[in-house]
Amino acid sequence: MKSRIRFIEDLDSISMQNPVLIQGLPGVGNVGKLGVTHMIQELKAIHFAELYSYTFPYHVLVDNNGILRLLRNEFWFAQLSKSGGEHDIILLTGDYQSQTPEGQYEIVNLILDLAEKLSVSQIYTLGGYATGSVSKNPKVFGTATNLSLIEHLKEENVEINESGGPIVGASGLLIGLGKMRGIEGACLLGETSGFMADALSAKVVLEKLIKLVKIELDLDVLEKKALKIEEVINQMKKMKRPSIRGRPDSESEEEKDDLSYIG
Amino acid sequence: MKSRIRFIEDLDSISMQNPVLIQGLPGVGNVGKLGVTHMIQELKAIHFAELYSYTFPYHVLVDNNGILRLLRNEFWFAQLSKSGGEHDIILLTGDYQSQTPEGQYEIVNLILDLAEKLSVSQIYTLGGYATGSVSKNPKVFGTATNLSLIEHLKEENVEINESGGPIVGASGLLIGLGKMRGIEGACLLGETSGFMADALSAKVVLEKLIKLVKIELDLDVLEKKALKIEEVINQMKKMKRPSIRGRPDSESEEEKDDLSYIG
Amino acid sequence: MKSRIRFIEDLDSISMQNPVLIQGLPGVGNVGKLGVTHMIQELKAIHFAELYSYTFPYHVLVDNNGILRLLRNEFWFAQLSKSGGEHDIILLTGDYQSQTPEGQYEIVNLILDLAEKLSVSQIYTLGGYATGSVSKNPKVFGTATNLSLIEHLKEENVEINESGGPIVGASGLLIGLGKMRGIEGACLLGETSGFMADALSAKVVLEKLIKLVKIELDLDVLEKKALKIEEVINQMKKMKRPSIRGRPDSESEEEKDDLSYIG
Amino acid sequence: MKSRIRFIEDLDSISMQNPVLIQGLPGVGNVGKLGVTHMIQELKAIHFAELYSYTFPYHVLVDNNGILRLLRNEFWFAQLSKSGGEHDIILLTGDYQSQTPEGQYEIVNLILDLAEKLSVSQIYTLGGYATGSVSKNPKVFGTATNLSLIEHLKEENVEINESGGPIVGASGLLIGLGKMRGIEGACLLGETSGFMADALSAKVVLEKLIKLVKIELDLDVLEKKALKIEEVINQMKKMKRPSIRGRPDSESEEEKDDLSYIG
Repeated sequence: MKSRIRFIEDLDSISMQNPVLIQGLPGVGNVGKLGVTHMIQELKAIHFAELYSYTFPYHVLVDNNGILRLLRNEFWFAQLSKSGGEHDIILLTGDYQSQTPEGQYEIVNLILDLAEKLSVSQIYTLGGYATGSVSKNPKVFGTATNLSLIEHLKEENVEINESGGPIVGASGLLIGLGKMRGIEGACLLGETSGFMADALSAKVVLEKLIKLVKIELDLDVLEKKALKIEEVINQMKKMKRPSIRGRPDSESEEEKDDLSYIG
Repeated sequence: MKSRIRFIEDLDSISMQNPVLIQGLPGVGNVGKLGVTHMIQELKAIHFAELYSYTFPYHVLVDNNGILRLLRNEFWFAQLSKSGGEHDIILLTGDYQSQTPEGQYEIVNLILDLAEKLSVSQIYTLGGYATGSVSKNPKVFGTATNLSLIEHLKEENVEINESGGPIVGASGLLIGLGKMRGIEGACLLGETSGFMADALSAKVVLEKLIKLVKIELDLDVLEKKALKIEEVINQMKKMKRPSIRGRPDSESEEEKDDLSYIG
Repeated sequence: MKSRIRFIEDLDSISMQNPVLIQGLPGVGNVGKLGVTHMIQELKAIHFAELYSYTFPYHVLVDNNGILRLLRNEFWFAQLSKSGGEHDIILLTGDYQSQTPEGQYEIVNLILDLAEKLSVSQIYTLGGYATGSVSKNPKVFGTATNLSLIEHLKEENVEINESGGPIVGASGLLIGLGKMRGIEGACLLGETSGFMADALSAKVVLEKLIKLVKIELDLDVLEKKALKIEEVINQMKKMKRPSIRGRPDSESEEEKDDLSYIG
Repeated sequence: MKSRIRFIEDLDSISMQNPVLIQGLPGVGNVGKLGVTHMIQELKAIHFAELYSYTFPYHVLVDNNGILRLLRNEFWFAQLSKSGGEHDIILLTGDYQSQTPEGQYEIVNLILDLAEKLSVSQIYTLGGYATGSVSKNPKVFGTATNLSLIEHLKEENVEINESGGPIVGASGLLIGLGKMRGIEGACLLGETSGFMADALSAKVVLEKLIKLVKIELDLDVLEKKALKIEEVINQMKKMKRPSIRGRPDSESEEEKDDLSYIG
């Protein structure tokens, strides 16, 4: 075993009501991580466990105080049932995904061991779906492990993924391996250019998620982040054009292409 | 162990008569997979087991209903002995081959464990032999683990592989590792350009196989697929030429080269 | 286990007083290895153990006598407490770092097993911080596993690493994994161009280290090495310029760029 | 364990007198494999064991009869002591070396397990030393695990390898890991261009080896192979020049460069 979970809080002291696991790791547009990090902050979630793995890259991170720490994934929980919620929520995010296929499979199985111990009956994974162009109204694509959940997604106007398209990384694997253990799951992917961290895409994914799981969640902070990113994009478009084409003030149909320069 | 087999049907309830294992996985020209998939459909085979592996790529697939599932290899059987056949048939195909040498060896050994449990005495693997050009009358090349089987191949006009040529991937390994366990085997490779999924090559391989294993099998569906692909090639040849060389209607000796544009 | 430690001296016969582990392996500018090798020589340290690993590259080295040996890391100790020092010192250097993430994690854990057995309470790792240009007064950057050690670094005018910057390889991992076992640690990185083995950078790192750990250490040999390298650089600058720009005797602001040609 | 040895002959029935292990695997100029294969033929050695490994490439080979087999390394022995020789000889060659560092280390340790079981006290590994140009009088370079063996090499006019030069692959590792188990060893490397299988280099290596180990061995067949290769080179030099420079019959100082075209 090249990966292990280290507990910060005593699991026996935590009693979860109908817990749902929501995963958002770094990936396309950082959509999943942005979404889950927002939930951790808004729901005042509690950090209760960490996952370490030999299959993460071999570097370490330094925080604001100059303190060094290992790369890790993090588990947080929010006992929403205490304030009348239908589900308690377990949130999973982290610095990195594993760098190897075997590491990905192993880590996802470790996560599922913990999910089973906590009696998780449903998993949602959040991620991005790269299209190469920026959309003002990003769609949310979805796939799930059974037809009733697919129907549920359709009711919330989630676009169902087309046949054959592979879903790469932990967001697909966690749902796929979870199914083998009898845990149902769905994967929600926000449309995103793929060129930048995309808070707008994270916001639209969370809008669907909170209806599906029935969570109350303020999305203002995420909306503000999205607006800020949009401003930066607009500024970059204005700055970039003259140096590239020498036409600083004309609006044109090439504008959409310009966005592809933002990386 | 990074791979495992999951049974859908209870093995004890299945009694096989002289079973032969026939493997066709994705590979050159997709010849093996096309062939075995055709057999599964025509023989109305029953899906009885699946193989999962940490050494497959870390993505998942989505089916026509939007349902997500893990990558896997699949075992099917057809009890041809019940309708007078000499052999029952076990068919093996799948989404992917392992991505690592160690995964390839491990998976093949798992398959052989199952083959031994089912008393398989003979294995055929199907694949493609890439030549880089399209042939209207593709040959079938073969190799085997003993001289009597080689003779058998020659009787059916299979071209025997030349000395020294390596056979890459699961079609060679399954036969080679099977030999170490006393299971005889042969590998049949259909000549193919290597530029596209090649139903014609799959058809000629199956024509040899059904004589070698004495199976009755209708090849019409495969033949139709092959004709359809040929049509597409012909259309592409006509479409491609003008844009490349500006000579839309002359037939020439460069025609053969054109095919290399079909990917 | 793909790595193991082989003892040359009997560990039970060695009693260490407040031992501090100092690691300097090959890496950016070879700063860490130059520094620890200098300490081994000046402190007349004793070679007491070696680490071998399947995850090192698969070649061997030949010494001055033509004698062949495996790649390895080496442990040395210097009992400075016997001559009134506050700490005994364990020094770790070697031929290579592991070539795989899993090897890196495994080896660092083996080193920590030994550190625990020897009751090491503090670890310093030495390395280089590549800037791409040669500095006459290289800075020393640092990070640590707790705030009191960070304060200690600041008192000695070590620049604290900025948030987010990853530290790659064994110098970060040893500190990060050590923290998980309750051993505090700091990583000192000398500013270096990254284009050559940098004795000056090693010297400034050791100047900080000996204040932090309170060691008496003569740095003359290292200083002479640094001067020699500087001479070579100056000669190369003079030789290189004419052939590149045809201006052999003008001093100019492009000089700094020139240094990037020294590899 | 991803590798294993399969015995063809019963080891208990073989009593070896002062056995020496001689290894020559595929590598630079194929020098080692050519040399050991020649010894197997001339000494009428007996094939007694085979090594298989998951870390070999995942393909299989086909022999002259069309029979398929797994990649392997092979052990052969020649009981020279029966005809008055000082040593019995164990010969090791094969199709491939492992493709991974861990595989290399694991396989070499398996070989050493067998060597210990057979009471091997000395190991010689044969290989090539690539220089990039063809020499009519290739030198033999050597390294060993102790000074008395180095002296022995010098007496036979083997050039001792210079300090620092790495020796890559199984020929270095077997000697290096053997030393850890108290088995002395030497590595003999024949100077070779590295552009082709080099029978002349294999011959000069064997000339040294048979003096060092005191074996009688006819080198005629190898000499003839070397002459044949030389002829081919000469023909290629004549053929190549016109098409490249248009000067078919002048002998010039560029001739040496020409050889680099032989691949």
